[in-house]
Amino acid sequence: MPFTPRTPRVVAARRLQRRREREATRRFLVEGPQAVREALTRPRTVVELFGTPDALDRYADLAAAAAGADVPVSEVTDEALAGLAETVAPQGLVAVCRHLDVPLETALSRRPRLVALLAGIRDPGNAGTVLRTADAAGATVVVFAGDAVDPYNGKCVRSSAGSLFHVDVVRHRDPDAVLVAARAAGLTVLAATGHGEQDLDELADAGRLAVPTAWLFGSEAHGLPRELAEVADAGVRVPLHGQAESLNLAAAAAVCLYASARAQR
Amino acid sequence: MPFTPRTPRVVAARRLQRRREREATRRFLVEGPQAVREALTRPRTVVELFGTPDALDRYADLAAAAAGADVPVSEVTDEALAGLAETVAPQGLVAVCRHLDVPLETALSRRPRLVALLAGIRDPGNAGTVLRTADAAGATVVVFAGDAVDPYNGKCVRSSAGSLFHVDVVRHRDPDAVLVAARAAGLTVLAATGHGEQDLDELADAGRLAVPTAWLFGSEAHGLPRELAEVADAGVRVPLHGQAESLNLAAAAAVCLYASARAQR
Repeated sequence: MPFTPRTPRVVAARRLQRRREREATRRFLVEGPQAVREALTRPRTVVELFGTPDALDRYADLAAAAAGADVPVSEVTDEALAGLAETVAPQGLVAVCRHLDVPLETALSRRPRLVALLAGIRDPGNAGTVLRTADAAGATVVVFAGDAVDPYNGKCVRSSAGSLFHVDVVRHRDPDAVLVAARAAGLTVLAATGHGEQDLDELADAGRLAVPTAWLFGSEAHGLPRELAEVADAGVRVPLHGQAESLNLAAAAAVCLYASARAQR
Repeated sequence: MPFTPRTPRVVAARRLQRRREREATRRFLVEGPQAVREALTRPRTVVELFGTPDALDRYADLAAAAAGADVPVSEVTDEALAGLAETVAPQGLVAVCRHLDVPLETALSRRPRLVALLAGIRDPGNAGTVLRTADAAGATVVVFAGDAVDPYNGKCVRSSAGSLFHVDVVRHRDPDAVLVAARAAGLTVLAATGHGEQDLDELADAGRLAVPTAWLFGSEAHGLPRELAEVADAGVRVPLHGQAESLNLAAAAAVCLYASARAQR
């Protein structure tokens, strides 16, 4: 018999929709076949897979991959699946995964050449989009620093479109300590800010984007705290050619990270 | 006495939250002092300004600017304002504005050097973000083509952060006709697509982004229809350096438009 919304393991998994439960158990939920597939490519990440009978039949390769990795695969009713999923059309699959962030020291020891540091970003959709963009631009480390959104928030996971599983995700309470460690690891820290003294194009023209770089991005609402921006090697502004007063976070991150990617080739 | 939610002019304005009413009257709503300020800088755009007594006092310069332009300014109750606004904290001001899109021919006759063509984009937040990014990158024309989102949708207006008032907005039913007209106006049409045969960086290296360019972007969910991409001068892909399979629309638009902006300087 498929599990129902009242089956204890379903009830336990559903609690992971709350941040406190995710922190306590160091587990989180991913939904949909694409995200489940990404999660299964990482060793010891998926703890349990739930699926409707239809979905487990349609995605038999994923069910087999899970079973082959000794991950319990359980049939659930449509109602139980709907309760586990946060989207309207999760395509019948939800997996419980282990947190996958690594210590800052581990991530930096791999000598990344492009890093994104998110300081105090609160919007999970924005955070996930920046994760995806950073991955696309070739960044291999994304740090959630300070009082930031939980990278395992369902909306962040979905917006990252799998990139949460591709890069080294780091969580750290203290943005200042992250900057110090990044510089000690040989990264130039560039703070993206509308008030930056350096123009992004001029930095590119001067060949200063070719070095290993950590880009520091602040929150959508408040930007970067001044004291944090001042610790960076430079404050950098994306040029505004029209009448817009600023770019939104995801767009600014895309332009900055891709400028570095192009210079580093 | 301030207008209440039941005052006929408030009732009429509130109907503009629906697309059908916006189309029928060619009017729309903007909320918050920053957007109202932008709207007031354009001649004959604001039709009516509603504000709570507090807000009209706090933003007396806006109330005076409206009155000076013969725009009726009306006090409304907090409840009436809350009904007119779609956000939780609209800061007490909502204006009724006239649609401001211009015919395609008018926009092209101004010889734009950078244009964004949005084909079939459905998400209003994405559309507004692309408007904002296009403006920031120096594009002076943004075309909503085909079965696209209404640019006067409240979420699009808010996401554009004022850029709706900065660029020439064009609405056109037929994306093919827009492409033909853009090329006739001397614009190179580049279709941004994950399957594009040209790499963005290689185009930039070859100096091919310095010419007047119209970037064609497709919907988040379905990308560009093949037959439309084939009519473009080139299909262009943003390079993916990491493991991400794609960029989201707003990030791809930011990278493409800023690549042109940099090449055109």
